[in-house]
Amino acid sequence: MRGLLKLWRRGHSYSSVLAGEPSVVSGNHAAVLLGANDLQFCEWPIPATPPHGHVRLGMEAVGICGSDLHYLRHAACGPFRVTAPLVLGHEGAGRVLQLGGGVTALAVGTRVAVEAGIPHWKWGANAAERYNLSPEMEFSATPPHHGQLATFFDHPAEWCYRIPDSLSFEQGALCEPLSVGIHALRRGRTLPGTRLAILGAGPIGLVTLAAARAFGALSIAITDLKDFNLRMAQSMGADKVIRVSRGDTPADTAAQICEALSGAPEVIIDACGFESSMATALAACASGGRVVLVGMGQSGPLSLDLAAASVREVDVCGSFRYAGTYPLALELQAHGRVALEPLITHRFGWSAAELAAGFEHATAPDAIKVMFRSLAGDVV
Amino acid sequence: MRGLLKLWRRGHSYSSVLAGEPSVVSGNHAAVLLGANDLQFCEWPIPATPPHGHVRLGMEAVGICGSDLHYLRHAACGPFRVTAPLVLGHEGAGRVLQLGGGVTALAVGTRVAVEAGIPHWKWGANAAERYNLSPEMEFSATPPHHGQLATFFDHPAEWCYRIPDSLSFEQGALCEPLSVGIHALRRGRTLPGTRLAILGAGPIGLVTLAAARAFGALSIAITDLKDFNLRMAQSMGADKVIRVSRGDTPADTAAQICEALSGAPEVIIDACGFESSMATALAACASGGRVVLVGMGQSGPLSLDLAAASVREVDVCGSFRYAGTYPLALELQAHGRVALEPLITHRFGWSAAELAAGFEHATAPDAIKVMFRSLAGDVV
Amino acid sequence: MRGLLKLWRRGHSYSSVLAGEPSVVSGNHAAVLLGANDLQFCEWPIPATPPHGHVRLGMEAVGICGSDLHYLRHAACGPFRVTAPLVLGHEGAGRVLQLGGGVTALAVGTRVAVEAGIPHWKWGANAAERYNLSPEMEFSATPPHHGQLATFFDHPAEWCYRIPDSLSFEQGALCEPLSVGIHALRRGRTLPGTRLAILGAGPIGLVTLAAARAFGALSIAITDLKDFNLRMAQSMGADKVIRVSRGDTPADTAAQICEALSGAPEVIIDACGFESSMATALAACASGGRVVLVGMGQSGPLSLDLAAASVREVDVCGSFRYAGTYPLALELQAHGRVALEPLITHRFGWSAAELAAGFEHATAPDAIKVMFRSLAGDVV
Amino acid sequence: MRGLLKLWRRGHSYSSVLAGEPSVVSGNHAAVLLGANDLQFCEWPIPATPPHGHVRLGMEAVGICGSDLHYLRHAACGPFRVTAPLVLGHEGAGRVLQLGGGVTALAVGTRVAVEAGIPHWKWGANAAERYNLSPEMEFSATPPHHGQLATFFDHPAEWCYRIPDSLSFEQGALCEPLSVGIHALRRGRTLPGTRLAILGAGPIGLVTLAAARAFGALSIAITDLKDFNLRMAQSMGADKVIRVSRGDTPADTAAQICEALSGAPEVIIDACGFESSMATALAACASGGRVVLVGMGQSGPLSLDLAAASVREVDVCGSFRYAGTYPLALELQAHGRVALEPLITHRFGWSAAELAAGFEHATAPDAIKVMFRSLAGDVV
Repeated sequence: MRGLLKLWRRGHSYSSVLAGEPSVVSGNHAAVLLGANDLQFCEWPIPATPPHGHVRLGMEAVGICGSDLHYLRHAACGPFRVTAPLVLGHEGAGRVLQLGGGVTALAVGTRVAVEAGIPHWKWGANAAERYNLSPEMEFSATPPHHGQLATFFDHPAEWCYRIPDSLSFEQGALCEPLSVGIHALRRGRTLPGTRLAILGAGPIGLVTLAAARAFGALSIAITDLKDFNLRMAQSMGADKVIRVSRGDTPADTAAQICEALSGAPEVIIDACGFESSMATALAACASGGRVVLVGMGQSGPLSLDLAAASVREVDVCGSFRYAGTYPLALELQAHGRVALEPLITHRFGWSAAELAAGFEHATAPDAIKVMFRSLAGDVV
Repeated sequence: MRGLLKLWRRGHSYSSVLAGEPSVVSGNHAAVLLGANDLQFCEWPIPATPPHGHVRLGMEAVGICGSDLHYLRHAACGPFRVTAPLVLGHEGAGRVLQLGGGVTALAVGTRVAVEAGIPHWKWGANAAERYNLSPEMEFSATPPHHGQLATFFDHPAEWCYRIPDSLSFEQGALCEPLSVGIHALRRGRTLPGTRLAILGAGPIGLVTLAAARAFGALSIAITDLKDFNLRMAQSMGADKVIRVSRGDTPADTAAQICEALSGAPEVIIDACGFESSMATALAACASGGRVVLVGMGQSGPLSLDLAAASVREVDVCGSFRYAGTYPLALELQAHGRVALEPLITHRFGWSAAELAAGFEHATAPDAIKVMFRSLAGDVV
Repeated sequence: MRGLLKLWRRGHSYSSVLAGEPSVVSGNHAAVLLGANDLQFCEWPIPATPPHGHVRLGMEAVGICGSDLHYLRHAACGPFRVTAPLVLGHEGAGRVLQLGGGVTALAVGTRVAVEAGIPHWKWGANAAERYNLSPEMEFSATPPHHGQLATFFDHPAEWCYRIPDSLSFEQGALCEPLSVGIHALRRGRTLPGTRLAILGAGPIGLVTLAAARAFGALSIAITDLKDFNLRMAQSMGADKVIRVSRGDTPADTAAQICEALSGAPEVIIDACGFESSMATALAACASGGRVVLVGMGQSGPLSLDLAAASVREVDVCGSFRYAGTYPLALELQAHGRVALEPLITHRFGWSAAELAAGFEHATAPDAIKVMFRSLAGDVV
Repeated sequence: MRGLLKLWRRGHSYSSVLAGEPSVVSGNHAAVLLGANDLQFCEWPIPATPPHGHVRLGMEAVGICGSDLHYLRHAACGPFRVTAPLVLGHEGAGRVLQLGGGVTALAVGTRVAVEAGIPHWKWGANAAERYNLSPEMEFSATPPHHGQLATFFDHPAEWCYRIPDSLSFEQGALCEPLSVGIHALRRGRTLPGTRLAILGAGPIGLVTLAAARAFGALSIAITDLKDFNLRMAQSMGADKVIRVSRGDTPADTAAQICEALSGAPEVIIDACGFESSMATALAACASGGRVVLVGMGQSGPLSLDLAAASVREVDVCGSFRYAGTYPLALELQAHGRVALEPLITHRFGWSAAELAAGFEHATAPDAIKVMFRSLAGDVV
């Protein structure tokens, strides 16, 4: 335990708080990744009081994301490597249990959704509204910053959003993936009437689909390899679902998309991020349209005919996390414009056994979103 | 001559006019490409009167562009192949000699710059302002449409722009490459204060440089392999010139660019279009910035780390020709904000010998822009 | 009849066609305004064939708009005065009966919605996408241009839009007022999540309401003096309806709006256009928001505290007719996102008696939209 | 003195710092407004050390703005009333003398320009980039917040901008009015080639003129009542200067502007803010253009024909202070694109006599900008 704490102190989050601070709260259990395929349900120290400007949350719903699974399998994700114990989870919602100094905007008892990233960017910055690109970003469960999959989680009050009474904690937690979809649609400048294709019907493709209808996209096609996911897409309002196979050429898939939509899509969200999906996107996209790359299936160079896309002014736009999306994510759900609960295919409680079961089910063929619930339930 | 005419009639431009129209005007000479490396100074038939809505121009200044040279060498350029005699040239200016039916906005004697493309797009189109993407585009010197390098040239009046008295025909002709630069800067959303890098100091890179200062870009770096071009760039106001060598890695060049500009450029115009230049652009560009691909050095797939660019939301934007640029191209020159005449390194008259000499000099190491002048001079 | 024809020839539309053209088609009846309160069901000459580029339509649905009523009462509307017989009507749909020369995009039998304005703007124009501002606009039923309320109507093919099979002619005709609403929402930059107020629940306010939901506006309040209209608004999905009275101060109404929406609206569409409604809008609008003036209730100067609005950067944006809206207006209806049929409170056929009855009912307290149907029904 | 301090403590800025803090630094002199026409050079207490996150500046250049004069004359400006002693001045630059806790981005000795407003807006705000609209804004010399016209001034480090070595303190101080001009041009969406009119050649009109050229506006007309100001405008590069007289009608002036620019301006900056100037702007502005109201000449209702502007989609846009302008204001001057020093018509030192003389000269007919210099000169 002392060893764990020592390692954990290397993280930015609480280092200054815990230094020379022997008193920590007990009863906090976290999903701690110790190395590849070594995830443990550990007691995890937290300071006696939340830091200045922070609130202590009792977590009530935390979803598993693809990056959590990637960390579990490889102890790394993209450029980030796990070199010290890391608490996983960045899709969370909870209840305010305690206020740190200076917090006035939230009260004890308030139910909140947690925006996972803290940008640390200064006001004067050229592009304040694009804080997702801040180089100093402190993002939950991205080393060396710990995540939210724990009984308690401390977070700056200004990055916590009150959940309307009509919404559940789960819907609060789903604001995180929904934010990724909203941001991708904004990056694509999706407008009422936009003809849209989404490549990939995994969790991100599906939340993007749900949000796209609320953005006014009228003709939406979505592709996937798996029937289960396409059936889910259909039930969530996709106009056309396209089953692709590994052998399909990008040209074939592009032709199928254009035929399904009776025309070339003006915006394409690539929620896969493979060379083949990007090639499909570039081939299918209407002249003057936008391909948004939100999936991260493949790292390293992709070989693509950019010149051919370029003479048609098909733009390739990256989409990274989100910025300024939480209020809309909550409102879209509160007004019933986006219904995400069907995405939660599996639910678990909070114990060593449940943690293990949750991560095991997360890779099942019929899993979209796995949610842990009432993590602080026994305590509160 | 009859054979030529026959082939030429295959083109869209005049086919309906010339059908069953034996009377043609003589005295028109054009630069006719008959095949790879076979460019001839030919007599070239034109109808007795310009078509409805068109004006007949006596050409006074026509520049050579890289695509003209490409056609000359390969009888092809990108997807376009020369399968019939083709008049070259699309950077022209001339004087109105005759009005076709229905033309009221121009008068005989008016000096005009010729916008080279006729989009044939209908008004109701979703994106009227992006007419450069029209699939029906009829563009000078792009098969099967003939170019402007001739004594006379007929063009729709609505695509001819009056040259202010203070500007020369050459300045009128230079509106064409300048338009390419303006469009690229617009695609990059270049704003006052933008930190800008231009890759390649050939004609397009240099006109982009000239226009960038007028757009308010404050720190501009430009790269090239050749000292001659970089000296030209320096004399045209580049803040930093960077001499690159074939062996340089993209990472090296990117680092040089960022150091020269004391920061990462927010907009990068790639006026080369090679895998190496695009890799440089993606590596150098600031997070949230835009890489504009205007050069077409390399066709086919480029192997690039799009995922790395995407997590920084560096967008890749194609820029194809231009739309709505001619009035600004003329005004920028008329107000002295853009001075392009130093780019004209060689000038020629209009004869078989001058034509040959002009195209020969166009590939000299000290050539930027070669201009033919007074093509209709003897006639008018 | 000869006299009428003479006067009618003063209009731009067919003057060139009819000059020296004795043969005209008979059987065409039009709603011809001869002066204030003098509307007649007249035989109305049309040329034997539609002009070049035009199609002849047999009209199947034509709605009455407020401006038609204004012309009827005052023989004038805004700056436009009726100095010669004028055919009314600009909200029409019909079936293609005959093609003028050069028309290839439409076929005989096609059902089309008629975009009422022909801009006559040239391509190169700075702001091609804002063709609604063209000074040469030829707009149906705006003197000296005749309207669509007739058995037959000739219109340029490029301004006719195919009605999908799933939509009725009435829905095609309703594209015109819906376009006004779409354009107003675009001018206000209405986005998913926008908090919106609409002042006035007349036909324009109601179509704007219907479109606003499709644009993703989540909280929509609408005001009116009349309960009938507010009930209609409620049935069409307004989140809050606010009954205003003539004595209410702008400050009171603004406070009611902000309370109803739990916050100040970011966009306000003023579909009334009175000093009091504009004062309400400026007071209610959130800082940094936009007030769109689409109604034209009052001409001449309005006395408003612009300085107070200006320090909060509340922008006042005019919205005039529409541009580039028809495809979206059709699609929104075809996808069931906008349901306008409840707006049609009264329907009439095509005869002198029906014409009179239609215009009489158009001012009834329970009238929203009056529609004439099957105008060409007996003929076709 | 004690009384002053008591009153001063009512201000937000230091109240928490000074409470129970007897030790204050002496030697600080400020321009303190005690009531209408009662401005005094007073000793003014400051805490021993700057607050957390703040730096203590020795002021080196502070300009007088119109609002300072307005406060002096009326002890009020717009909605703000002076009910306690108020230090004037919000256009300042100085040298960092001392760092408050937590400041790492600035060092002692750094020369900085002071952005006058501290927004106190949270990151998540919908419109982070429009922080100028923050309701919690703490703006220098706007009651109850004290200004910068003093020997020493404490300001948050994040709102201080390093002045490049090539620029003077005066140029640093001029960033404030220049920011107002930049913001107005941005609100007007001034682009390369924009035809621009500026109404009023006072300090704001003139800085807007200077910045407009850097934004690429090509044809700029400016109006004023005074020859002195118009001569200044001419020397700063106005293309056309128009001398207006009190008796001129808006229609006359509008016609003069359009004639001077050979067309209607697409953007008009009203730096006067009177009913007559706004009427001129609405009449002169091109269809689809934007009138930016930055001047505040007249409060209360203005009577304007908004309907006539609205059918031409001439938008009326407020412009309030600025946001995100300081880096550009410094760069434009550092790159020599904007030369504002001619605007400084009078310079004064720092003593009771100089303060009085400065404010007296500020209303002279040949005064544009009055600057106090070396306020901390004897101390440092």
